[in-house]
Amino acid sequence: MNHINKRSPKGAFQFILLTISIAMKPVALAILFLTTLLATSKSSNSGLPLPIYPLQPLTGSGHEHHLHGISCQSWRLGVETNNIQGWKTVPLSCEAYVGHYMLGHLYRQDSKVVTNEAALYAEGLNLTKDGKDVWVFDIDETTLSNLPYYAEHGFGAEPYNSTLFDAWVDTGKAPALPESLKLYKKLLSLGFKIVFLTGRLEKRREITVTNLKSVGYHTWEKLILKSSNDSGTALAIKSSKRKELEAQGYKILGNMGDQWSDILGNNAGQRTFKLPDPMYYIS
Amino acid sequence: MNHINKRSPKGAFQFILLTISIAMKPVALAILFLTTLLATSKSSNSGLPLPIYPLQPLTGSGHEHHLHGISCQSWRLGVETNNIQGWKTVPLSCEAYVGHYMLGHLYRQDSKVVTNEAALYAEGLNLTKDGKDVWVFDIDETTLSNLPYYAEHGFGAEPYNSTLFDAWVDTGKAPALPESLKLYKKLLSLGFKIVFLTGRLEKRREITVTNLKSVGYHTWEKLILKSSNDSGTALAIKSSKRKELEAQGYKILGNMGDQWSDILGNNAGQRTFKLPDPMYYIS
Repeated sequence: MNHINKRSPKGAFQFILLTISIAMKPVALAILFLTTLLATSKSSNSGLPLPIYPLQPLTGSGHEHHLHGISCQSWRLGVETNNIQGWKTVPLSCEAYVGHYMLGHLYRQDSKVVTNEAALYAEGLNLTKDGKDVWVFDIDETTLSNLPYYAEHGFGAEPYNSTLFDAWVDTGKAPALPESLKLYKKLLSLGFKIVFLTGRLEKRREITVTNLKSVGYHTWEKLILKSSNDSGTALAIKSSKRKELEAQGYKILGNMGDQWSDILGNNAGQRTFKLPDPMYYIS
Repeated sequence: MNHINKRSPKGAFQFILLTISIAMKPVALAILFLTTLLATSKSSNSGLPLPIYPLQPLTGSGHEHHLHGISCQSWRLGVETNNIQGWKTVPLSCEAYVGHYMLGHLYRQDSKVVTNEAALYAEGLNLTKDGKDVWVFDIDETTLSNLPYYAEHGFGAEPYNSTLFDAWVDTGKAPALPESLKLYKKLLSLGFKIVFLTGRLEKRREITVTNLKSVGYHTWEKLILKSSNDSGTALAIKSSKRKELEAQGYKILGNMGDQWSDILGNNAGQRTFKLPDPMYYIS
């Protein structure tokens, strides 16, 4: 409970509500929203240095330096469209903006747009039903959410700490992304074979299986993890794994990830889908 | 003066201000902003059916039907990330949202993020200076703006009318996109050769040359238009033109467009940049 608690005693409460809200109970969300508003007004009254701002562009001069005069809203679009590449952390001045985005309605809405389009596309395909029609899903921020971790680590504004992040992964407690889980079930019902392709290491296979199953991903054709002798960028490794997959006769009809490195490169799939993720960038 | 004027007698005034604002004088923008606010409050007082809304998600039940429950803001992100493909018109319920986006600060900001990243990338390259280092620009909504036309035609919510649009192009009065013009000048100063690659037909070469020169694009290596025997999608045609270009020894180091069909396909360029355009989609 790092950043949030430093700012406001309401942080712990918000975090609990976050966990509930991931299951997307509308009532919990409404309470979260109200609590956030409350926390905001309290923070400004008490003059704390980092109140949580409502979701809107930050254009004060104090913020412009790090972003060369652009707003966090425009920064996020730049990131989502792959115009801004290779960034290491969320700009410090956008931490609160990204936090509000991730905890609010918009992240869920933006995800839903993507999975809706994916479902429409999938329904329109004529599957061969030979067991080779594949949909590829990335795992982190695509099927499982690490938001409970990132909510404690500046929503990507803190430098990445692999020790802490791996410890979180090893708890096996990442919730499902609700819109992705819905799509996963739809794809299974249509006859797709599911392949999970992740940058997680092979040594995390067991905890990953446990985590996936515990939140509703009960079956798949393959779970492909990164082996200790894979080297290069995520883009190169994932391209190579997809090439192997198609060499085995699988047809990648859909491919969904939160990173452009999930969906660019060779054998990308007949159609690709980019889920939102303003918290980190993987090459 | 179609949609805007129907709504409010202030429409004509707004349109004049729009034309001025494209040259991006801060004072004109401030006046435009105030006028828009004024027009909005007047519209709601007089109970007109289509007031221009401030830039925010439309989530009223009246809007949800066409968008399957998603907001215009999420729709726009879906479009910009190429998750939503092949759409014919802006959803009617998003006309006012897109209008405000295009006329307000955000479109300019979002464009600036892209051209800033492009400039940073370009500055970091070691050019061979053999006259073969090329930057490819699309024309419409990339170097020239058709916003004065679209402001009169529902910002993309009206079905595309080629007769009317061609008549507008033939006036040769499209203003420059100010951030793109700035980037163009920077690229020239760095030693790039500029290639314009457009879906405009060869028969519009002369008016296109006149228009480009009149707004500040004074020089280029090639202006490649669509010839009468080019067939297929824009993506296929542009890919093929780029392939010819590289066969001639040019190296496409950067490629910028407002459509994904400008920057996907073969010989796309060493790095590509996607400018915002929520008004239309070209395959």
